[in-house]
Amino acid sequence: MEFTVAQVAEVLHGTVEGDAELRINRLAKIEEAQAGAITFLANPKYEPQLYTTHATAVIVSRTLELRQPVAATLIRVDDPYSCFTALLEFYQQNARTGRRGVEEPAFMGPGSTIGDNPYRGAFSYIGENCVIGRDVLIFPNATIGDRCRIGDGTVIYAGAKIYADTVIGARCVVHAGAVIGSDGFGFAPQPDGSYRPIPQIGNVVLEDNVSIGANATIDCATLGSTIIREGSKIDNLVQIAHNVEIGRHTVVASQTGISGSTKIGDFCVLAGQAGLAGHLTLANRTTVTAQSGVGKSIKEEGVLLQGSPAFALRDSLRANAIFRHLPELERRVTALERNQSEQEKP
Amino acid sequence: MEFTVAQVAEVLHGTVEGDAELRINRLAKIEEAQAGAITFLANPKYEPQLYTTHATAVIVSRTLELRQPVAATLIRVDDPYSCFTALLEFYQQNARTGRRGVEEPAFMGPGSTIGDNPYRGAFSYIGENCVIGRDVLIFPNATIGDRCRIGDGTVIYAGAKIYADTVIGARCVVHAGAVIGSDGFGFAPQPDGSYRPIPQIGNVVLEDNVSIGANATIDCATLGSTIIREGSKIDNLVQIAHNVEIGRHTVVASQTGISGSTKIGDFCVLAGQAGLAGHLTLANRTTVTAQSGVGKSIKEEGVLLQGSPAFALRDSLRANAIFRHLPELERRVTALERNQSEQEKP
Amino acid sequence: MEFTVAQVAEVLHGTVEGDAELRINRLAKIEEAQAGAITFLANPKYEPQLYTTHATAVIVSRTLELRQPVAATLIRVDDPYSCFTALLEFYQQNARTGRRGVEEPAFMGPGSTIGDNPYRGAFSYIGENCVIGRDVLIFPNATIGDRCRIGDGTVIYAGAKIYADTVIGARCVVHAGAVIGSDGFGFAPQPDGSYRPIPQIGNVVLEDNVSIGANATIDCATLGSTIIREGSKIDNLVQIAHNVEIGRHTVVASQTGISGSTKIGDFCVLAGQAGLAGHLTLANRTTVTAQSGVGKSIKEEGVLLQGSPAFALRDSLRANAIFRHLPELERRVTALERNQSEQEKP
Repeated sequence: MEFTVAQVAEVLHGTVEGDAELRINRLAKIEEAQAGAITFLANPKYEPQLYTTHATAVIVSRTLELRQPVAATLIRVDDPYSCFTALLEFYQQNARTGRRGVEEPAFMGPGSTIGDNPYRGAFSYIGENCVIGRDVLIFPNATIGDRCRIGDGTVIYAGAKIYADTVIGARCVVHAGAVIGSDGFGFAPQPDGSYRPIPQIGNVVLEDNVSIGANATIDCATLGSTIIREGSKIDNLVQIAHNVEIGRHTVVASQTGISGSTKIGDFCVLAGQAGLAGHLTLANRTTVTAQSGVGKSIKEEGVLLQGSPAFALRDSLRANAIFRHLPELERRVTALERNQSEQEKP
Repeated sequence: MEFTVAQVAEVLHGTVEGDAELRINRLAKIEEAQAGAITFLANPKYEPQLYTTHATAVIVSRTLELRQPVAATLIRVDDPYSCFTALLEFYQQNARTGRRGVEEPAFMGPGSTIGDNPYRGAFSYIGENCVIGRDVLIFPNATIGDRCRIGDGTVIYAGAKIYADTVIGARCVVHAGAVIGSDGFGFAPQPDGSYRPIPQIGNVVLEDNVSIGANATIDCATLGSTIIREGSKIDNLVQIAHNVEIGRHTVVASQTGISGSTKIGDFCVLAGQAGLAGHLTLANRTTVTAQSGVGKSIKEEGVLLQGSPAFALRDSLRANAIFRHLPELERRVTALERNQSEQEKP
Repeated sequence: MEFTVAQVAEVLHGTVEGDAELRINRLAKIEEAQAGAITFLANPKYEPQLYTTHATAVIVSRTLELRQPVAATLIRVDDPYSCFTALLEFYQQNARTGRRGVEEPAFMGPGSTIGDNPYRGAFSYIGENCVIGRDVLIFPNATIGDRCRIGDGTVIYAGAKIYADTVIGARCVVHAGAVIGSDGFGFAPQPDGSYRPIPQIGNVVLEDNVSIGANATIDCATLGSTIIREGSKIDNLVQIAHNVEIGRHTVVASQTGISGSTKIGDFCVLAGQAGLAGHLTLANRTTVTAQSGVGKSIKEEGVLLQGSPAFALRDSLRANAIFRHLPELERRVTALERNQSEQEKP
């Protein structure tokens, strides 16, 4: 994507000072910007950088008074920060997800339908009897199994794998390599010590506005559905086991694992590399800090947990503070013992 | 898949009470079942749900006496639970893995052979000189490198990546996105602090009835084979490094990592997010609890380990119980010190 | 790949003793070698195995004096170990990465160019306006987005996913299923508790000689670049968040996670399953042991860290040694209390 400064200024309702025909092809921070980049100045603290930046164009306030000559072309607007944010969103939508049409070869099985304005990348696969909404983007090498339903405006990035019978809402994002609907890890031990797979015939349901990170894995339910409710955000490499339910607007950071049948409430935050045992219930607004291991249900809302095994954050911080100095504590006990036995001597 | 109640009843050798022509397209728990679903009643505790369920059909015992009218059509059988389990297995085999034939385009290199009754999904890739058995299913976008051998009845799900020279036994399942045979992480430090890759030319061997979870990674051996023996089950996002050997019927839960050259015995259980250092040997029937870090070999069979670093589960539970109350222990020591110095005063 | 003993001997400038026309198709350790394998004997300790090995050929020293008859054909060379290492490298280059040409169908968008001597596997995808160097190998089902740049001699294994605008240097290796350039996990909380995605329009830059493990994930920067500098090696299933910078010749082992905007120095070692909080700086030559959780910046070079939360390795080892015996320490305190109260009795 490349635009002239004049084109950008027109979209932002700004006025140009300098060469309006210069070409812009990327956005950058003012301190990192090179030729071809557009940046912005909102915080007066950064004004000195305005006079040294290598950016081709800078979005500045209409009211800014220059104290030195500026090499870059300026676009003057009322609110530089919100204008730059608007450019960011425009850029992301156009550079990353602006592609439309069908690249051949792409596969769609019998009985499947897709709404208006799709992108189906080369080597993307849609099985049989799927119902896919409008403005859905399916990137190259993604695989969507039979009988899936996908809502309007959802983006499935390259190489994501969606098993049969998955239901995905509107405006969801599934990042590259994510796997949705793989078999739950359920095996029945046999008398000889071997394991027999328990059939896993449920599915996964993602409600609207859910985001799934790269190479995350979400298993289908044994029976029924593994569910991620509206607006929840799942980071890269997260594992969500069979029959888990995650509430609305909950955030799960990278490499966290949630074991089978656990229910997480709304507005929770699970930090990175945390682990949750199976069959737990976490109340709304529970926070689990990084690397914690949660083995018990939490009934009270708003609890903060830390440690492995996890308990209240405040208590955990205190216990850890003493843990670091355990050798000293042990020496103090030894000194007490020595003194006491001295005193006991006749 | 859709069947009439009559068709299902015939398969189960059951008798129908109600409308035998109703259509069924899914299986569900009695409390979650909606129209179109078939469910079952085995435990008398759930009998009240029989009178309120929205299921289209319910499998019940021949001897059940109804106390109220039932809206659903009934299928009476000798053993409702085992009939439902049989339906589950039938459903999984047909809905998930019932596809046969070759979807074009699919790639198979020169010198490769595949047995009868295969499924090769669109955009699946088989390299050169592979020997693949009968009833093997290779889902879309899966990649199988040169000279691989795959046994009868094995299922390779969408987008799995099998490197060259991998050997996979019969009736294995490799879930979507799993990577088998990537280079071991071996680098020789050079005098200038940089690293030179050590050639990794071994392979991976999965014996029969092995299951590999979604997005799990198994590195090839430097020389020789990384081996997973018969019947072992590996969960999603597990990492198995080069030259590891995992015994028979061992279970490795999600996000666990096993470092290079470690040997795990038979009938072991490694819970989620555990980590094992390299060059260890774990005896048969060792259990490692979640998030534990094992740094030493275990020679005795049947040991339970916990903690990072891990030691005996029983001792770990006791140490953790006191860890939580370290601040109190520290206060007790301070009180003792104060008392002792009081007593020492003349 | 298959060679005669004579062909191998010629490459190694060795002399053959035995049948020079036997065929060799693999390399093995002397104790594991079977028919068809070539192995070597360098360490005199293993000489007894020379007389029992099933290898077809063995590379030995010109000066070795046989004490018993040998079934295998011998290749005598000056330095058996370095000859075998050369064979390993030759084998890896030819067996794994020797393929050249374009397998159809492969996709390359308008405006993209690729240098001489490429491999483009079937179902591999290259977007628009990419600039790809010579001797680049792109395995089946790999996806490379628009405007990517890839240097000479780089290998992209099967099913790797490279998002648009990624820059990859020369002689890099990206293993199967790795995702490079997915959105950073950035969401702005809204007044109603929901989250709005923050546009992530930066990219990822891998410098020369970088290796990325299977199913690892590297997020793009929010603005600017997530950078992995020259020669650094990233293992399987590692998570690198947006705007992270990793210095030169740093090693990151499997399942480690690095949070947003953290900067790692040169020559660092992060062992497996470690976690680093966001916005940290780690000095050059920092070592983080397995499963550690680092929450603070490290300014001094050469520090070793352990634990979660992590502190100096030496202190951590001491604290852990006492942790194991906390129940005993607690009993000692109880005994002191009892004695003290005894003494206080009148």
